[in-house]
Amino acid sequence: MLYRRWGSKDDLVVTYTSSSKEDVRIMEKVKEVMKAHVIELFLSGYLSKEDARKLLLGINTFTSIDPSYEDVHEALEDHLIKQAGEAGGSIGLGRSRNDHVATALRLQMRDEILELLEFLINFRMTLISRAEENLSTPFIVYTHFQPAQPTTFGHYLLYAEEEVASRWESIYRTLDLVNRSPLGSGAIVGSSVNLNRRREASFLGFKDVLLNTISSTSSRSDLISAIMEIANLMLSLSRIVEDIILLSSKFLGIVELPDSHVSTSSLMPQKRNAVTMEVLRARISKVVGDVMTVMNMYKSIPSGYNLDLQEINPFLWDVLDESRMGLEVLNDLMSKVKVKEIKADNEMLATDEAEILTSKGIRFRQAYHEISKAVREAKFVPSITMEQSVSRKVVEGSPSPQRMKESISFARERVTIHEKTLREYKNEILKGEGELRLIENDILQEGN
Amino acid sequence: MLYRRWGSKDDLVVTYTSSSKEDVRIMEKVKEVMKAHVIELFLSGYLSKEDARKLLLGINTFTSIDPSYEDVHEALEDHLIKQAGEAGGSIGLGRSRNDHVATALRLQMRDEILELLEFLINFRMTLISRAEENLSTPFIVYTHFQPAQPTTFGHYLLYAEEEVASRWESIYRTLDLVNRSPLGSGAIVGSSVNLNRRREASFLGFKDVLLNTISSTSSRSDLISAIMEIANLMLSLSRIVEDIILLSSKFLGIVELPDSHVSTSSLMPQKRNAVTMEVLRARISKVVGDVMTVMNMYKSIPSGYNLDLQEINPFLWDVLDESRMGLEVLNDLMSKVKVKEIKADNEMLATDEAEILTSKGIRFRQAYHEISKAVREAKFVPSITMEQSVSRKVVEGSPSPQRMKESISFARERVTIHEKTLREYKNEILKGEGELRLIENDILQEGN
Amino acid sequence: MLYRRWGSKDDLVVTYTSSSKEDVRIMEKVKEVMKAHVIELFLSGYLSKEDARKLLLGINTFTSIDPSYEDVHEALEDHLIKQAGEAGGSIGLGRSRNDHVATALRLQMRDEILELLEFLINFRMTLISRAEENLSTPFIVYTHFQPAQPTTFGHYLLYAEEEVASRWESIYRTLDLVNRSPLGSGAIVGSSVNLNRRREASFLGFKDVLLNTISSTSSRSDLISAIMEIANLMLSLSRIVEDIILLSSKFLGIVELPDSHVSTSSLMPQKRNAVTMEVLRARISKVVGDVMTVMNMYKSIPSGYNLDLQEINPFLWDVLDESRMGLEVLNDLMSKVKVKEIKADNEMLATDEAEILTSKGIRFRQAYHEISKAVREAKFVPSITMEQSVSRKVVEGSPSPQRMKESISFARERVTIHEKTLREYKNEILKGEGELRLIENDILQEGN
Amino acid sequence: MLYRRWGSKDDLVVTYTSSSKEDVRIMEKVKEVMKAHVIELFLSGYLSKEDARKLLLGINTFTSIDPSYEDVHEALEDHLIKQAGEAGGSIGLGRSRNDHVATALRLQMRDEILELLEFLINFRMTLISRAEENLSTPFIVYTHFQPAQPTTFGHYLLYAEEEVASRWESIYRTLDLVNRSPLGSGAIVGSSVNLNRRREASFLGFKDVLLNTISSTSSRSDLISAIMEIANLMLSLSRIVEDIILLSSKFLGIVELPDSHVSTSSLMPQKRNAVTMEVLRARISKVVGDVMTVMNMYKSIPSGYNLDLQEINPFLWDVLDESRMGLEVLNDLMSKVKVKEIKADNEMLATDEAEILTSKGIRFRQAYHEISKAVREAKFVPSITMEQSVSRKVVEGSPSPQRMKESISFARERVTIHEKTLREYKNEILKGEGELRLIENDILQEGN
Repeated sequence: MLYRRWGSKDDLVVTYTSSSKEDVRIMEKVKEVMKAHVIELFLSGYLSKEDARKLLLGINTFTSIDPSYEDVHEALEDHLIKQAGEAGGSIGLGRSRNDHVATALRLQMRDEILELLEFLINFRMTLISRAEENLSTPFIVYTHFQPAQPTTFGHYLLYAEEEVASRWESIYRTLDLVNRSPLGSGAIVGSSVNLNRRREASFLGFKDVLLNTISSTSSRSDLISAIMEIANLMLSLSRIVEDIILLSSKFLGIVELPDSHVSTSSLMPQKRNAVTMEVLRARISKVVGDVMTVMNMYKSIPSGYNLDLQEINPFLWDVLDESRMGLEVLNDLMSKVKVKEIKADNEMLATDEAEILTSKGIRFRQAYHEISKAVREAKFVPSITMEQSVSRKVVEGSPSPQRMKESISFARERVTIHEKTLREYKNEILKGEGELRLIENDILQEGN
Repeated sequence: MLYRRWGSKDDLVVTYTSSSKEDVRIMEKVKEVMKAHVIELFLSGYLSKEDARKLLLGINTFTSIDPSYEDVHEALEDHLIKQAGEAGGSIGLGRSRNDHVATALRLQMRDEILELLEFLINFRMTLISRAEENLSTPFIVYTHFQPAQPTTFGHYLLYAEEEVASRWESIYRTLDLVNRSPLGSGAIVGSSVNLNRRREASFLGFKDVLLNTISSTSSRSDLISAIMEIANLMLSLSRIVEDIILLSSKFLGIVELPDSHVSTSSLMPQKRNAVTMEVLRARISKVVGDVMTVMNMYKSIPSGYNLDLQEINPFLWDVLDESRMGLEVLNDLMSKVKVKEIKADNEMLATDEAEILTSKGIRFRQAYHEISKAVREAKFVPSITMEQSVSRKVVEGSPSPQRMKESISFARERVTIHEKTLREYKNEILKGEGELRLIENDILQEGN
Repeated sequence: MLYRRWGSKDDLVVTYTSSSKEDVRIMEKVKEVMKAHVIELFLSGYLSKEDARKLLLGINTFTSIDPSYEDVHEALEDHLIKQAGEAGGSIGLGRSRNDHVATALRLQMRDEILELLEFLINFRMTLISRAEENLSTPFIVYTHFQPAQPTTFGHYLLYAEEEVASRWESIYRTLDLVNRSPLGSGAIVGSSVNLNRRREASFLGFKDVLLNTISSTSSRSDLISAIMEIANLMLSLSRIVEDIILLSSKFLGIVELPDSHVSTSSLMPQKRNAVTMEVLRARISKVVGDVMTVMNMYKSIPSGYNLDLQEINPFLWDVLDESRMGLEVLNDLMSKVKVKEIKADNEMLATDEAEILTSKGIRFRQAYHEISKAVREAKFVPSITMEQSVSRKVVEGSPSPQRMKESISFARERVTIHEKTLREYKNEILKGEGELRLIENDILQEGN
Repeated sequence: MLYRRWGSKDDLVVTYTSSSKEDVRIMEKVKEVMKAHVIELFLSGYLSKEDARKLLLGINTFTSIDPSYEDVHEALEDHLIKQAGEAGGSIGLGRSRNDHVATALRLQMRDEILELLEFLINFRMTLISRAEENLSTPFIVYTHFQPAQPTTFGHYLLYAEEEVASRWESIYRTLDLVNRSPLGSGAIVGSSVNLNRRREASFLGFKDVLLNTISSTSSRSDLISAIMEIANLMLSLSRIVEDIILLSSKFLGIVELPDSHVSTSSLMPQKRNAVTMEVLRARISKVVGDVMTVMNMYKSIPSGYNLDLQEINPFLWDVLDESRMGLEVLNDLMSKVKVKEIKADNEMLATDEAEILTSKGIRFRQAYHEISKAVREAKFVPSITMEQSVSRKVVEGSPSPQRMKESISFARERVTIHEKTLREYKNEILKGEGELRLIENDILQEGN
């Protein structure tokens, strides 16, 4: 223990309040932040090049967090004091755990969002490819879980892709706010140490600085925004997961799941249970619960840092972990799922028939009532097939072959643009980090 | 009842499932959507100009929703059948309640978000003005609800402004996804009625079309994204609300609330309770609960329209209503709240003193331990005043007068840009709506 | 306004913080509490009989709450001051809004729980009767939404009854803690007015006194416990609601809903959507959301009364209202729902066949693997019928006719005992309230 | 893998859906359940004594769960097949994972609730002892976080005790419903294997049988009820936790925390942050979030077992773990916390003074307004001291010394009764388990 000098090593503060275990997730980022801080102290004249060199070397040899420390920050500072001698005593200058942890969390979140967005690009490509394969594979959609109208499996897959594409944009749009630097804000009101916050920020690839020091050190709203949008993606996919559970049931027999996604019963050998999707359904509730927990933890705590903020972190990462795992499972399933032969259900052609009647001059509502009566009296006989029904759908976004081709082109183009956007975003970050690396190397070289 | 022909008027379907009462909120938008649909039917050749005229007149005379209808859509269609005669039977062509309600909800949400963003601009201006007034008013901030360091009230107010500004951007960024048109998608797979979805969309001021018809008719994710971000704003403000409750307590006596925001006890006449802030604190929990309820309702329902979607709507509007009301109350309070004279607390200068020691060549951590010891032994005497402490804070975003001036300029500039962005967004919408109005007038004129 | 003497009538405190509208729900209970208070003041010698008479008359003429008051308590006190003259000035003695509202809330909750429990008795009787009717009606149950084994509809209905019976007990068990009196506890630490808290409590039919005055005036945990258990009931029923939606889908065609519970589509006339169950499914999410909101509002507010507590109340009542409405709808449906003819599915007999093989000396797991292989190779032919399968189920709680008869007797007996328990509980309350009525009449008589 | 014969070992079903890791928590209970099953098979004549002996020996040598199994049940069955040879193939008879896991979960929950209740008895004793020590220690309570009236610290501690006592009863009342046996119910509809469900139940110390086999195998409502009530306890304590954070702040300086519960800042050496309470505050949000997640996971899944149910389990245990840890931390703090000298605040005597005036014949509301005016004009001078104020509080549950003594006696008596109740409950369980042990020994002996 570095900061507290009373209490014993095994007291409650350490065992109940230490975040050492959880801090492993951000350890590399905490080291990066410390490097930026050391280099900035050097560039601003608060630290000699020699001190800076010792500290940078010390940071590089920090590889694990002893659980007896309150957190990674105390552990790292103590490590530096031990490794870099006197110089270690200077890194507390103009910094606090409050601004350092806020910075590391934003870096970690930024990089994990980017990784998620990249995975989503792949997932969307899977969906588009499979839509192309199934451009005209007969499929049934429902409303109110009642068979509604014929469509194609490709049309359904493009629906999934559009849902993911929308959420991709939502998640992407949270990046700029996350990607702002709190570094240099001290504990809450800044400090008298004249650090150049913008220079520090650029070293870490940040797009901007989060200006106000109270906001910098204690706000977690940008991070909450990010996990909310990720949860929203999963929520949207929960409906598709439910579809798969229902459609793959022997009761419906519309889709067939790959063997690797089903399990059986210890008592009923005939069962093919959609177990991965059941687990995913539950895990999406977990993701929703994570967001809820974070909201409850964050709500109404006084401004400024409170230790409650530390407790939020595991839930941020859990949203990311569960989403990524779930998406991998879903991507695997969607790349292999097959549609079985669809049994024709004439009543699903009732709407088409009403539309056909209107083309003969009957008002729609009247046509509707006529068809409706025929259906109820079990006298309804359609004049077209399921395939013809699909082909007749002419509005944009419909399953007719022509519209499907357009929709696939559109989806491909959109995903290509998104991919490019992502690549450029990452390049910007790499540029900043490259500068840091250059200066670091320069300082380290010196010593040889 | 128009669609259902069995059951009695007072049966459970109507009394338990009707949304007539709730639909009042979107009634004007439903009428707008119907106008766009009628005009599109006319422009596409499915409807004579005379029929279109009758229908547009009929829409204009629809002013209330009889609770015996399932919803506003059935009520409007029945009204048109009664008002426009035969023509009324045609409006069911190429449309469904599913695409119409999705369109109306997006229009309503778009306009309410714009209104909220406008109010937030005002709120931010209040905060900036008050920050300017209180540029150097002494104030105390805390971490862990322990007095931390001296600052100015202006610095605190800019913190509040920065929090709102960040959320402003988050909310604004949800607009483009909300502002997409589902119109023309029918019940779920489109229809054989060749409507020009992009033309319909432009009439309603939409920025784009939501392509896939399944997504169009059954996705509510874009709306959920919007209320999540609004809830996130309120969550961020909940901390400021808590600050006010605590700081205005007689225990702390740091801020003084206007009389109109406090109440007293029926038994204890000395009490000045921060009642508006207590209610607001609770209402923010309500907003969080609304989002939670929406997430739970939406989760795992099968794709395609389900009546559960209708039950989501009141919670969308409640998030907006409670947020707007709460913001008005908070804006009023923030425009009037006063800071009392702050009692000096020397220990709050401990960090400054440690920084001063380092400037004399002592390593920071050593300086920290010396000061720490002095504090614990109650021997700590600072060499500077609270005001000097504030002035010494040199990093960007700090409370020193120079940095405060920069921060105020920055905040002013940012809010001005946001205001302009908002104005332009609204103009784009007005342009589309203007086109609709022109064609409507043209059709209505004809009849005279 | 009675207590506050500053601010204007239309200020924010009144418009944003008044609970007048919501207090209608507890108005009658607030009057009862005031009567008990007046009679106790009289019996303890703080009030003359004449004053008591005027006040009781005044309470009886209080019939509505003007929205300009902060709440029902202020409105009632002001009414009494106007109606009973000088005497009105005495009712503030030894009381506070804090203990009065806590008492009224507990009385209201107690009575509404009793009403709910009574309704649940009826619902269970519906389920038992229908189980008796359907003792051997063939039915299918699933696990993982895959057809599992044959059973009878009666067996399913008894499952529903047992779920409700379990929750009935849980809800009943919350009563005793709710049914405790906070009356006489003043604002937070009691008072110097020597009221007999136990006598007051008995007048209101309370079973006990909640002792500590801080707990009395500010704890809502007993009420939260009650709504949690009610939410848990609805949660349990949400699975049955889901069953009905799925089983009534044309995809499965296992149950047929009464016409009054289905609706159709404006575009697809063939649809029979289970709309009441969809709304109920969503409303159960609302109930869960209500509980969540209450938990969030209650969490971490400082001890003692806070206005946040007032904001909790509407959610308590909403849980009761939505549950009662939902139960009525479900009760109606369950009393009419019919099972269609079940198509035999041989694979559902696989487990039976494995059990039959073991009776021939083969170890179960080996039998299981043999049957499993036959199923996968589509060679499985069962040696018994679906009916025989059901009859073979011999363990307690199984669907075989003998076990069903026992289970029905058991359920009938249990519901009869619960009904009696409920009746006795209500009689105890009536006894206490009768005493109050006697004394009230005695005081009122005097005046004639 | 025992049941599934397709797919590879490293496929997604195993890696994503296995509960092997989580099942460690219930492993001992799963073994107990299997013993009861084996003994019942033997007693019912389905298994020879020799087979039973081999199986019991096998169960005793099962000590860990290989992660390649789907769950503990598959792992145990495979272990038995390997250890007990042919006999292992018989344990699948008349059982399913569905009834076995439901039974084990109830046993584990029952025992963990009992343990929690026992800890709560200790916690209450701590509170009562400390109340006795602080019977007349001056203390301040607030409403609306404004200083309200003087009281004693003992009074506050008894408030805490009464809150915990109420919740103790709530939690205790969930036990009987949890403590019912699902064993023998097979996968969902029972089986043709004539097991005596009541005998099996008694071996495991169950109080009763959960009758209906669908309810038995798929309901988790009794478990949810238990964790809801535990969460409600923590919610109630969250207010006391908040009190401690606020009262120990240097701003208020009313209580002093033990060193082992505070930490300091890396930048501000003067800070004494209430870190354990901050973490506990956040962890109570976690507990609330756990309940929410469970509700969301459970909601609307079809009846019968679904794999979602498995995902609920970790959250059940987390509620117990976090509550137990939090209670230990809180118990430690409450046993050591000290009250500092309270600064007199005359205005807190305003209510007393109004009551004194009424004893001189002035109506209360008039007295109130006079005092109110004096307070506002800063002319209020009380005629009594803070101590006298406390002594004057005469109603039951108040802080006056006489009432405090009564309240302490009452609390002591109540906790003693609860302790006895708990002891008896545990003895009943031990009796049942003793029978199982006897038969087990008898069977095992045979082999020697």
